[in-house]
Amino acid sequence: MIIVLKPDATKEQLDGLMELIEGMGFEYNLSEGVQRTIVGVIGDEEQLRDAPLTAMPGIESVVPILKPFKRASREWHPDDTLIEVGSLTIGGGNLAMIAGPCAIESEEVLLEIGESVKNSGANILRGGAFKPRTSPYSFQGLAEDGLKILQSVGQQLNLPVVTEVMDPRQVELVERYADMLQIGARNMQNFNLLSEVGQTRKPVLLKRGLSATIKDLLMSAEYILSNGNEKVILCERGIRSFDNSTRNVLDLSAVPNIQSESHLPIIVDPSHATGRPDLIPSMALAGVAAGSDGIHIEVHCQPEKSLSDGPQALLPEQYTAVMKQIRSLTELFGKVIPAPSDTSA
Amino acid sequence: MIIVLKPDATKEQLDGLMELIEGMGFEYNLSEGVQRTIVGVIGDEEQLRDAPLTAMPGIESVVPILKPFKRASREWHPDDTLIEVGSLTIGGGNLAMIAGPCAIESEEVLLEIGESVKNSGANILRGGAFKPRTSPYSFQGLAEDGLKILQSVGQQLNLPVVTEVMDPRQVELVERYADMLQIGARNMQNFNLLSEVGQTRKPVLLKRGLSATIKDLLMSAEYILSNGNEKVILCERGIRSFDNSTRNVLDLSAVPNIQSESHLPIIVDPSHATGRPDLIPSMALAGVAAGSDGIHIEVHCQPEKSLSDGPQALLPEQYTAVMKQIRSLTELFGKVIPAPSDTSA
Amino acid sequence: MIIVLKPDATKEQLDGLMELIEGMGFEYNLSEGVQRTIVGVIGDEEQLRDAPLTAMPGIESVVPILKPFKRASREWHPDDTLIEVGSLTIGGGNLAMIAGPCAIESEEVLLEIGESVKNSGANILRGGAFKPRTSPYSFQGLAEDGLKILQSVGQQLNLPVVTEVMDPRQVELVERYADMLQIGARNMQNFNLLSEVGQTRKPVLLKRGLSATIKDLLMSAEYILSNGNEKVILCERGIRSFDNSTRNVLDLSAVPNIQSESHLPIIVDPSHATGRPDLIPSMALAGVAAGSDGIHIEVHCQPEKSLSDGPQALLPEQYTAVMKQIRSLTELFGKVIPAPSDTSA
Amino acid sequence: MIIVLKPDATKEQLDGLMELIEGMGFEYNLSEGVQRTIVGVIGDEEQLRDAPLTAMPGIESVVPILKPFKRASREWHPDDTLIEVGSLTIGGGNLAMIAGPCAIESEEVLLEIGESVKNSGANILRGGAFKPRTSPYSFQGLAEDGLKILQSVGQQLNLPVVTEVMDPRQVELVERYADMLQIGARNMQNFNLLSEVGQTRKPVLLKRGLSATIKDLLMSAEYILSNGNEKVILCERGIRSFDNSTRNVLDLSAVPNIQSESHLPIIVDPSHATGRPDLIPSMALAGVAAGSDGIHIEVHCQPEKSLSDGPQALLPEQYTAVMKQIRSLTELFGKVIPAPSDTSA
Repeated sequence: MIIVLKPDATKEQLDGLMELIEGMGFEYNLSEGVQRTIVGVIGDEEQLRDAPLTAMPGIESVVPILKPFKRASREWHPDDTLIEVGSLTIGGGNLAMIAGPCAIESEEVLLEIGESVKNSGANILRGGAFKPRTSPYSFQGLAEDGLKILQSVGQQLNLPVVTEVMDPRQVELVERYADMLQIGARNMQNFNLLSEVGQTRKPVLLKRGLSATIKDLLMSAEYILSNGNEKVILCERGIRSFDNSTRNVLDLSAVPNIQSESHLPIIVDPSHATGRPDLIPSMALAGVAAGSDGIHIEVHCQPEKSLSDGPQALLPEQYTAVMKQIRSLTELFGKVIPAPSDTSA
Repeated sequence: MIIVLKPDATKEQLDGLMELIEGMGFEYNLSEGVQRTIVGVIGDEEQLRDAPLTAMPGIESVVPILKPFKRASREWHPDDTLIEVGSLTIGGGNLAMIAGPCAIESEEVLLEIGESVKNSGANILRGGAFKPRTSPYSFQGLAEDGLKILQSVGQQLNLPVVTEVMDPRQVELVERYADMLQIGARNMQNFNLLSEVGQTRKPVLLKRGLSATIKDLLMSAEYILSNGNEKVILCERGIRSFDNSTRNVLDLSAVPNIQSESHLPIIVDPSHATGRPDLIPSMALAGVAAGSDGIHIEVHCQPEKSLSDGPQALLPEQYTAVMKQIRSLTELFGKVIPAPSDTSA
Repeated sequence: MIIVLKPDATKEQLDGLMELIEGMGFEYNLSEGVQRTIVGVIGDEEQLRDAPLTAMPGIESVVPILKPFKRASREWHPDDTLIEVGSLTIGGGNLAMIAGPCAIESEEVLLEIGESVKNSGANILRGGAFKPRTSPYSFQGLAEDGLKILQSVGQQLNLPVVTEVMDPRQVELVERYADMLQIGARNMQNFNLLSEVGQTRKPVLLKRGLSATIKDLLMSAEYILSNGNEKVILCERGIRSFDNSTRNVLDLSAVPNIQSESHLPIIVDPSHATGRPDLIPSMALAGVAAGSDGIHIEVHCQPEKSLSDGPQALLPEQYTAVMKQIRSLTELFGKVIPAPSDTSA
Repeated sequence: MIIVLKPDATKEQLDGLMELIEGMGFEYNLSEGVQRTIVGVIGDEEQLRDAPLTAMPGIESVVPILKPFKRASREWHPDDTLIEVGSLTIGGGNLAMIAGPCAIESEEVLLEIGESVKNSGANILRGGAFKPRTSPYSFQGLAEDGLKILQSVGQQLNLPVVTEVMDPRQVELVERYADMLQIGARNMQNFNLLSEVGQTRKPVLLKRGLSATIKDLLMSAEYILSNGNEKVILCERGIRSFDNSTRNVLDLSAVPNIQSESHLPIIVDPSHATGRPDLIPSMALAGVAAGSDGIHIEVHCQPEKSLSDGPQALLPEQYTAVMKQIRSLTELFGKVIPAPSDTSA
């Protein structure tokens, strides 16, 4: 950690600072420059991070040198982490192709969609039983009935299933039915929920918040990891920006950016990012080309009749078309879309 | 609701749309322009909002005409809403002056800060017992012990107290000790938590999320109101932007903007918005001049030793100075800073 | 254009509005709904756009139905526009691969870089002679000397050249030496400069401003087109956002988004967008997969000695590697990277 | 300047770095920490700023310690700078109250507005002769005819006048007629225009760009100052954000933030920031309370008939009302709104 003194800092202030640093058990290195005096603190930055140094008189700025996340970092775990979702292994070149409707509406509809996306190459089925809706008057999901339908359809199709959990009180319930727990963008900094899913053994799909930096996202992953659950898959799903011609801005540079900082898999969700079916296929391809570890797409047989977020879903035939192109890309890049193994055998 | 057809929409697509509208029990008004055909739907827009019309072929755009919030709107309740917090009445010209440390650290420290801010004119004491920290390794608050200290100090000083609740499972506990429940910026769209505090009878201080629009904030208020709790005080505390010379950008136009849309009180928090003690006083004054219903400021006797967010706190003497200026402003604008009535009598 | 009246608008206000509309020679269609009265204006929206209707009493909002750009729109020109840059044709599946140093430093350095990128497959050479630097104390470019070097190297290598023009007074000069004129992001709304390059016959590479919406970018293109120059190539180069781990956020959805709105070619610049050489290759590949009409990459033989923006440049061998992958992608997608024809014959 | 090495940097890389630093004539201070080695460079940071150190192998990050602006900084000029605009002195507690229409339409209209705002207390008259319009089809201003009208009305009313200059070629012309030159938000980084107005002797009103940081704004001021013109007044006029319920977000913390960094006056423009007349008065008051050196408001007698930006203008009676409140505030804060002295005597 680097501490920069104000040009008019007094000797007393500098002495006070050095006393504080020594009192915390650190060494330091003093560098008196032409225009500023700089103090480099030597030791575990973690312990210094909470000391409100900038509140001390005479200090102009404090520059952390290390990343605030540890278990999520590449330094902690240099190799790509592989994560088991049901019978699949995701990460390190094995892509998660997650597809399904926004909300679970009925077993019949989910089964029809699920069969279709599986035939097109999807390897994980998604569907919401608890829906975070901005309006209290909108459809809020089928709750446990939805979870039962999801589990049943997943078993019929031999596909692992993922669904969102919104509340620490739901974790135990959702864990019983789902192969992977999703934390939605609006709950990315719901720290109590993060701690709770950190105590399960199920993998977690952690979506980036609408105004979360890469560091924020990795700090939220750190909450899960530090609670004992090492199975975290990150998901870029668009950030808020000033142009309302798309719902959000898909930040694809987050993919290589995160891969340089962290060992965790990172997938891309062009459905929520754009909110526009006409843009989803090209953004899915761009996501694969950017090096992501998977693609998450909403698919609905009758988007115009869906109970939630219909306009952003692809039709099954559109999903088939984009999956065909994605497979060409994965071959080109030497990546694999694993198929769920037949666990009933 | 206005539906705009694509220039190449077919007669079949238009017929299908009109059939759907009639099937939902609405009337419509057809306007064939030179370049576009437009369908105006007549009826309760609420029911139409969830119909995914943009997913239908031939439709270019759907323009809602009404606001998606109802109970939070001025149309629902034209007069300013007055809200009782302990023995205070806030709103309609009665300002909430909320002050106190970021986190509750000990009864001794809280009492010292509380006495000081009360003497300077604060009428509500704040302090965090559950802290939403971006790092799992940071101090997370004293939990119930902190709540007990807060209640005790509030009673000793005859000041209503407000503290954050982060988890639906904490609501009952926090409600027992606090006069007002705070929902933090990161939980503004934690819809289950909103529903839960909507079922209490305690007033709620709802902070704007870092990337929440005015509409988003009012929709979150709607969650609380529609669950039966009509006591919601909104709080502008800065939004994310591209300039990192302040922590966030304080959006003071949110004050008159919200007041034109909603009857709920709206206060301003310059501490979290700027993260810089040197900017807090002028932003507090600007908040009062903008017409806000109160100011929220963090105060700490020894910011450099605080366990959380020290750098953004004012010293007691700085708070005294800014309160003196605020009182001049409130007199000028004909506003009142009510003092808690002596409820022990 | 749709005009929504306030719920409390008077009959006089409605009459005044209808009179104004008729006075401007338009027809209208009145739709009195349950909660709002709506007036649909029939006629050329262009003429109505400047009438400050929202300033009239009784009017809640005015909703334009048509796009404000005309010549830049797909409706005006349904097919992709092909643009000749020197001996190349760009657009409609023919990709521009623009490469070269940030600033022109000397003929020797530029020739070395130019030969290298040409061998790797670049078909347009870039280099700045006038540099828009945020600091007045930074290197500002070699001006006309730089233009001469650029032209000379372009002729030696038989590569068309592109360079930035920053000032209306430079247009004539730059036009004399360059095959394509670049308008930088900071000048995207320098309307006098746009008008001036609109009067040349050279193609223009128009970069998206740091906070420009898609509509803003197309309106700036409209300035050039409406002045008579139909040769505009757009360039996505990142927008400002809240995360400073990259210089900007590359908005790749702008590619299909613009292609749905406009007939103009759109290329991608991952160098300026990310400012990080480690992210440039994957963002270049993602740009091709997103369907862009070209890629713009800065290349320098000794980035650590360059006079401007060195850190964001690729080394020649890195450029060779990414171009090899790009060629595989273009083959997969059926696109072509045209080679400049030998015009000396 | 602080240089942080990567954890796996080699001795050769460190040696190369130290050689480079010494070769540029600097000293350094080496600090080998537990997790990182840090090099503090001692000497004039200005010369190091352009060296692309981050492109060197083994370097993780480079942290500048000093501000990149010099003449605009408080360190350069500790006292507030006072600037003469016509017969007025602005800055250091003397507020500029700038008012007038968006565009100059006719002498009759401008005189009517000018008389009204002068009677209400405005001390500088504004009006646009060259208009930066996003659409090439919108009214672009009366050019020199407008400048003549502006000068004539200013002389009749004994008010200094300010008007925008958009093009280096217009500077000489505009300088002839106006008492202050305005650089609009879209031209804040039009560096050639900045250099040109830096060579005049007229004061410059420099508006903050839509996505400019405080540092960016001060760097643009530095362009003017370093060209020899020391009379720069800054203007906060709103930045781009994600909420479209106002045109931009007025960043009032920019006022004290800039005052802590710079000696230049900073005024506030709530008209362009909000684009909503209902929000302008409270934002003007908040601007004064924030400590600004003036307020810029658009006023039009018939906003619904104005040729440009009518909806954001106040009516003269609305301006009178807000000026009455502003005067109460300035008295409270001990500020002065100077009246132009009678220069005809």
